[in-house]
Amino acid sequence: MLITLRPIGYVIKGIGRCGALRKEASRYLTNSEILVFEEFKDGLKGIEGFSHLVVTWYMHEVHEVKLRGRPWGREDVPEVGVFATRFPPRPNPLGITVVKLVELRGNILVVRGLDAFTGSPVLDIKPYDFYDVIEKPRVPEWFLRYWRGRSPESVRAFNEFKSGS
Amino acid sequence: MLITLRPIGYVIKGIGRCGALRKEASRYLTNSEILVFEEFKDGLKGIEGFSHLVVTWYMHEVHEVKLRGRPWGREDVPEVGVFATRFPPRPNPLGITVVKLVELRGNILVVRGLDAFTGSPVLDIKPYDFYDVIEKPRVPEWFLRYWRGRSPESVRAFNEFKSGS
Repeated sequence: MLITLRPIGYVIKGIGRCGALRKEASRYLTNSEILVFEEFKDGLKGIEGFSHLVVTWYMHEVHEVKLRGRPWGREDVPEVGVFATRFPPRPNPLGITVVKLVELRGNILVVRGLDAFTGSPVLDIKPYDFYDVIEKPRVPEWFLRYWRGRSPESVRAFNEFKSGS
Repeated sequence: MLITLRPIGYVIKGIGRCGALRKEASRYLTNSEILVFEEFKDGLKGIEGFSHLVVTWYMHEVHEVKLRGRPWGREDVPEVGVFATRFPPRPNPLGITVVKLVELRGNILVVRGLDAFTGSPVLDIKPYDFYDVIEKPRVPEWFLRYWRGRSPESVRAFNEFKSGS
């Protein structure tokens, strides 16, 4: 069985491909823009009521599948399965990203936190609501170690990003 | 541009189609089962390190699109755009659901909180990690009203569901 989907829009301003913009802090400090096709514009009504959204997008440049790998390619992290990480070479290269809504400008959503390149097709947009909040999820030791090792700049950027106001 | 995806597995035990099992409390109290195809089984390695997962599935029984509607079909809720709600008749009927991992049994994931019917194709599974936690998202008044009106049973079920242990 194959499932065929059609983009509802595109990332018209995404993260940079190299250098500073790929750094985590930058991702949370930089605005991205999603253009939603005119025909679906009506579907955006009332979206400004939510501070955060869940964007489903397609990693159109990913053409390989690796069922196992080391997260972030780091040698000090154990090899795990693709479904235990967010790494891109997945059987279906879908990106599911929590973003902060900065502004709705006509049919353009200005958001923060999106880790998609310019040109990525967007498949769905949903509001982030209280059902998505698991305050204290359990994560494996390798993730905890990574989390604790973030730079002060990254921590600051993410904390600013997640504030609901 | 069309995007073609292939299921990585199926919901082999989902929520019931009517009656008690469709009630919210039941969803968070009842186990669902996802069968991941043998060829992708390797991708599950290490997934038990996470208490919660994000399951991307396809609402295979949804064949209509409504760009606007009233959430939960309630007359006391304003009409909003499809991208400001989770309602199913979306341009791409993808379900993105945070679930609790109860058990990994071979290539079967036993989870809680999944709102998919038996037979739904599963497209991706990702770990729920700290980047997904927005402790205090802003939500519109209509959502708040709904949230505050939940039954004590629903509140209890969801609180149990979201505990990380």
